[in-house]
Amino acid sequence: MFKAIVSSGTLRAALDSVSVLVDECKIRLEDDGLTIRAVDPANVGMVDLSLAADAFESYETDGGIIGVNLSRLEDIAGMADSDQLVELELDEETRKLHIQFDGLEYTLALIDPDSIRQEPDLPDLDLSSEIVLEGRNVDRAVTAADMVSDHIALGVDADEEYFYVDAEGDTDDVHFELDRDDLIALSAGDAHSLFSLDYLKEMNKAIPTDAEVTVELGEEFPVKMHFDIAEGSGNVTYMLAPRIQSE
Amino acid sequence: MFKAIVSSGTLRAALDSVSVLVDECKIRLEDDGLTIRAVDPANVGMVDLSLAADAFESYETDGGIIGVNLSRLEDIAGMADSDQLVELELDEETRKLHIQFDGLEYTLALIDPDSIRQEPDLPDLDLSSEIVLEGRNVDRAVTAADMVSDHIALGVDADEEYFYVDAEGDTDDVHFELDRDDLIALSAGDAHSLFSLDYLKEMNKAIPTDAEVTVELGEEFPVKMHFDIAEGSGNVTYMLAPRIQSE
Amino acid sequence: MFKAIVSSGTLRAALDSVSVLVDECKIRLEDDGLTIRAVDPANVGMVDLSLAADAFESYETDGGIIGVNLSRLEDIAGMADSDQLVELELDEETRKLHIQFDGLEYTLALIDPDSIRQEPDLPDLDLSSEIVLEGRNVDRAVTAADMVSDHIALGVDADEEYFYVDAEGDTDDVHFELDRDDLIALSAGDAHSLFSLDYLKEMNKAIPTDAEVTVELGEEFPVKMHFDIAEGSGNVTYMLAPRIQSE
Repeated sequence: MFKAIVSSGTLRAALDSVSVLVDECKIRLEDDGLTIRAVDPANVGMVDLSLAADAFESYETDGGIIGVNLSRLEDIAGMADSDQLVELELDEETRKLHIQFDGLEYTLALIDPDSIRQEPDLPDLDLSSEIVLEGRNVDRAVTAADMVSDHIALGVDADEEYFYVDAEGDTDDVHFELDRDDLIALSAGDAHSLFSLDYLKEMNKAIPTDAEVTVELGEEFPVKMHFDIAEGSGNVTYMLAPRIQSE
Repeated sequence: MFKAIVSSGTLRAALDSVSVLVDECKIRLEDDGLTIRAVDPANVGMVDLSLAADAFESYETDGGIIGVNLSRLEDIAGMADSDQLVELELDEETRKLHIQFDGLEYTLALIDPDSIRQEPDLPDLDLSSEIVLEGRNVDRAVTAADMVSDHIALGVDADEEYFYVDAEGDTDDVHFELDRDDLIALSAGDAHSLFSLDYLKEMNKAIPTDAEVTVELGEEFPVKMHFDIAEGSGNVTYMLAPRIQSE
Repeated sequence: MFKAIVSSGTLRAALDSVSVLVDECKIRLEDDGLTIRAVDPANVGMVDLSLAADAFESYETDGGIIGVNLSRLEDIAGMADSDQLVELELDEETRKLHIQFDGLEYTLALIDPDSIRQEPDLPDLDLSSEIVLEGRNVDRAVTAADMVSDHIALGVDADEEYFYVDAEGDTDDVHFELDRDDLIALSAGDAHSLFSLDYLKEMNKAIPTDAEVTVELGEEFPVKMHFDIAEGSGNVTYMLAPRIQSE
């Protein structure tokens, strides 16, 4: 059994954070809220989303897993204004999800969860640096790096205490530096890793410009990025595998 | 002789309602205003537009028929702000229409009316239901149906007194219901007909979201939709032939 | 040596006025400001831009010429808000330009000035008419003419004292007339010349709608158009060669 009411804006923020990596996903219906974990087909980018029951206007379930087509569900939610309430109800027999708002009822065929790529385990990493910055600075870094390269290096200089972004193109380079004054918080240890810009660009699309983004970084290690959605009742974690530094 | 002054916004609303179905049309210049009737090449959708003389700032004619290229005329009108006055004057000798505003004069070659598809007769149908609803609800119905199907069923449940829209896709369905409270008016008789969504999508483009749209509906009959333009000085009627229900 | 600080908006206005004609250009660094002169590959349109030192927040140079890729430089400047200050610094050794704002540093490889098309001389022409009009009227003329033709005639009727624009299409014509009341100033001598609309459309993109544009016009002569940028600290001159009148 699953029956819930949630604002369209909250639903979309949650779905968008996952759909930048995958087209279909499993949604785990738990007592205290929803969780989604997914990894892209190339096993490079992962997402772990939780949306607590209190992000919902009402939320009832006796548990279970449903498989959904994300873009379909986003299109439907996109028809409602962002503060409009959307009603979700699972029909156990037909395995269809009924989505209702303002007289409109959409019946969404679910996907067999067994046909969806297995959920990844997001490893617990001991990363040397933790940077907290505004979403708009993630956006600036990604946009600038994209002008010159397909790759982006993220790093922390522990002595000088700043976070930096480097992108090297064939002729042009981009360097972006944020020190303690520009950051919300910094726990500095030496860190430097190279990433594919394609993935960061996608993840960046789901990061609100006014979000506080926590970035965990190491030496040639994956990067983790966390941020809240739904006024703190939801949380998104991205993990992105590093590219081997070619030198 | 034809000489008229009209706001760009009124002119465009009138032209847009016709251009969603045809590229060229005949405009009948009558003592009390303009009328346009047109049918699409497949004979499925018809439009009947009237724009009374009082929708114009000034209006003079001794009658006649002119043939126009609609997109050309829309582009010209589109150069003016919507409350800017546009002057139209027919040159009988050259068979050209002079369109002027703010120092700019456009000379539009007319099309021989005989080369334009014949104007249809909009049959007088005795339809069982009449629904009056807001343009924004037409838009919602069409947008939602378009997510799952190429067809849309419109119907009225006379017992329960509601208007409904159904669209059935391969896996997903859309159902949209508006009862007396959601409608502006309802004269309910049983009605149900299936239509091509392509046509309704085009017609929907010309319906203002805040318009009062009157929908006349029957059992496997054409649908008629009426709405006012130009603050009531103009009126548009669409008629759309039903698709044969495949069952 | 070259080191300067300038608002992103001023930098972009200057670059845009040149990039509508060419992709690469030489920038002359002079004591009292920058100048750029360029001609398009077909030798039809020329631009002469000057941006005085007082358009900059700070400006230092000991002279020289640098070659730049305009779209690259525009993209970088476009990342800053228009009132944000951008720092430019030339590295003489590496022949790279460092562009910095708000923690972000972009290193732009310069182009060998000798590989860029030679700068044109803008001839001093004795043109019979001078028209001063708002940028928005240039835009209207170009947009309207573009609806019917690839060419545009600009002219002045010295007796009746008006500036006009004519475009003749296969079936439709556009005529646009601005008299003393519609113009900011008019020094009227008979003038009439035909131009390629493609070039004027590009130049028009760089003309602010609220700019005062001075147009110098003759009989089958090039047209010159001037306007200020950077609140009068910069000036753009376009010159466009006439097309031979075919008649």
